[in-house]
Amino acid sequence: MSQFWSDVVHKLTPYVPGEQPKLDNLVKLNTNENPYGPSPKVLAALKLEAAETLRLYPDPNSDALKAAIAQAHQLSAAQVFVGNGSDEVLAHVFQALLKHSRPLLFPDITYSFYPVYCGLYDIDYQTIALADDFTIKLEDYDQPNGGIVFPNPNAPTGIPLALAEIEKLLQINKHSVVVVDEAYVDFGAESAVKLINTYPNLLVVHTLSKARSLAGLRVGYALGAVDLIEALTRVKDSFNSYPIDRFASAGAIAAMQDQAYFQATCDKVMATRAALIKELHGLDFSVLPSGANFIFAKHATMDGAEITALLRQKNIIVRHFKAPSRIAPYVRISIGTDAQSAILLSALAEVIHSA
Amino acid sequence: MSQFWSDVVHKLTPYVPGEQPKLDNLVKLNTNENPYGPSPKVLAALKLEAAETLRLYPDPNSDALKAAIAQAHQLSAAQVFVGNGSDEVLAHVFQALLKHSRPLLFPDITYSFYPVYCGLYDIDYQTIALADDFTIKLEDYDQPNGGIVFPNPNAPTGIPLALAEIEKLLQINKHSVVVVDEAYVDFGAESAVKLINTYPNLLVVHTLSKARSLAGLRVGYALGAVDLIEALTRVKDSFNSYPIDRFASAGAIAAMQDQAYFQATCDKVMATRAALIKELHGLDFSVLPSGANFIFAKHATMDGAEITALLRQKNIIVRHFKAPSRIAPYVRISIGTDAQSAILLSALAEVIHSA
Repeated sequence: MSQFWSDVVHKLTPYVPGEQPKLDNLVKLNTNENPYGPSPKVLAALKLEAAETLRLYPDPNSDALKAAIAQAHQLSAAQVFVGNGSDEVLAHVFQALLKHSRPLLFPDITYSFYPVYCGLYDIDYQTIALADDFTIKLEDYDQPNGGIVFPNPNAPTGIPLALAEIEKLLQINKHSVVVVDEAYVDFGAESAVKLINTYPNLLVVHTLSKARSLAGLRVGYALGAVDLIEALTRVKDSFNSYPIDRFASAGAIAAMQDQAYFQATCDKVMATRAALIKELHGLDFSVLPSGANFIFAKHATMDGAEITALLRQKNIIVRHFKAPSRIAPYVRISIGTDAQSAILLSALAEVIHSA
Repeated sequence: MSQFWSDVVHKLTPYVPGEQPKLDNLVKLNTNENPYGPSPKVLAALKLEAAETLRLYPDPNSDALKAAIAQAHQLSAAQVFVGNGSDEVLAHVFQALLKHSRPLLFPDITYSFYPVYCGLYDIDYQTIALADDFTIKLEDYDQPNGGIVFPNPNAPTGIPLALAEIEKLLQINKHSVVVVDEAYVDFGAESAVKLINTYPNLLVVHTLSKARSLAGLRVGYALGAVDLIEALTRVKDSFNSYPIDRFASAGAIAAMQDQAYFQATCDKVMATRAALIKELHGLDFSVLPSGANFIFAKHATMDGAEITALLRQKNIIVRHFKAPSRIAPYVRISIGTDAQSAILLSALAEVIHSA
């Protein structure tokens, strides 16, 4: 607390990201990173950027990157907005498109950055409870609102929504923006991108941190009608002219162009997920249906916090959420390699046996 | 205009950065980039980051980078805040420390992003006119305020302020934050960093885009009391957990550690500046005193807009500001290499001769 702080600073409850431990030899399954590195074509493109040209500013409009993203999604570049990770993109979305006199709606259990953005921009919001089976019931969002945002698949549950449900919501909710946060969509959910040319109030947010294996590079993007993209661009150009550095641009372009590597990586992660879920059932875990590169799992008798702490002693990091109490029994486990699954399963068997 | 836009979007007048032309063979003297590339040690560090580890998030707290910056300035890491270029740092500064019931004060002729931030965050501000000789008169800032911000040297004039003047202001203005934006300080002005341990309301902002030759990498930082840094961190952690990507971190650390290369580069730029000013005097230009890597120059008879347009025809880009009218006669010329100075001077001689 300080006389020098603006009012908003006193009221903030910042987001707490998953731990990025500085230890080696950990099985790190806590922040949903891809177990496979980026495409070799991405690494080759990045090496070229370590050059004298770094003395020059990057393109403030990131035109080449927008063109590559547009091509990958069969949209126009004017339907693309890019930012320093999808968290920055979402921040601009909240300020530019989701702050209205009516409350913003989002699920009570979801990406915990959403209420933080509302605090930062003084946005009125209302949460809608998930159903008993932890699914999002989009029919509950048919009420006056200043915007709607939800992830598909949802976090931290991993449960995917059917595209038909999203389209139904877009049909009845025409007067505010519907943001579908598709950070994990490539691991088994249906993308709403194909609806963009039909619904002028649909905005879809993607990241290169998960399926494209580039969490360390910080690139995310939004896709939507030109009108929505313009609002984001106006805010970005009032905040930071050049959020995408030369490496981020070059690496992201190469990643968007290597669809074969991307698909092969996603396929491997999904295969590992299916095998892991099967083994977890054998250890008395129940696992929510997942369309993401993580699973949300609950043991028949042991608590989520206890499992997390015991795994940590074995140098395996998963993520546990204390609140709300409905999800406290669960652990969220990022999908790693098959070898990491084997280490995890062996450790879990010991942990459960010793309890 | 759109029903989907938040109120603030309708009112924004975004910042317009200097042009980043996509043509080759230009003499580009319009955005104050360093004519010399980054240190070879920086390039070596950057090449190592093009690796499998990009699948992992960077350190959200950028601890290693903060330590390197702290060491370069003989401060503690808790006195350092880092961001995606000094524009992002300044944006957080405006929201976290400069939004109060009393108006923010800054010069009427200065970095034109300041009023844009005020628009984005709805900050009340008041501009203070420069003196007739274009200097900032800090005694004019002795009035009720919610904060004070100015660049040293000022932009786009390049005129440096004496540190004793800044210290006088800090002594009389104890109840609001004084931000000294030192983007260009290393080219011949006195840094206020040495006052940080004495004045708890002083915040100094630096960038790696100019003296450290890394405009393409996007790293800036703020230095100040722990209390001020905490406010910035709270806003950053409510906006984007990971603004510094793995390349930005590695390159910036290496740049902060190579003080010899940094000093040699600054010395070369200052020598070229002195020689250029002398030659411009011979072409009937008057040049404001510069402590920056650019100069603000006015010809005896030709208008700034005309000179800028004629140079453009010769593939030389400088920057002209139409408003306010007091600076319309001037051109802002970034300091390039001696060879670029020679091309510029030869072109100017032709332009003036033909007019």
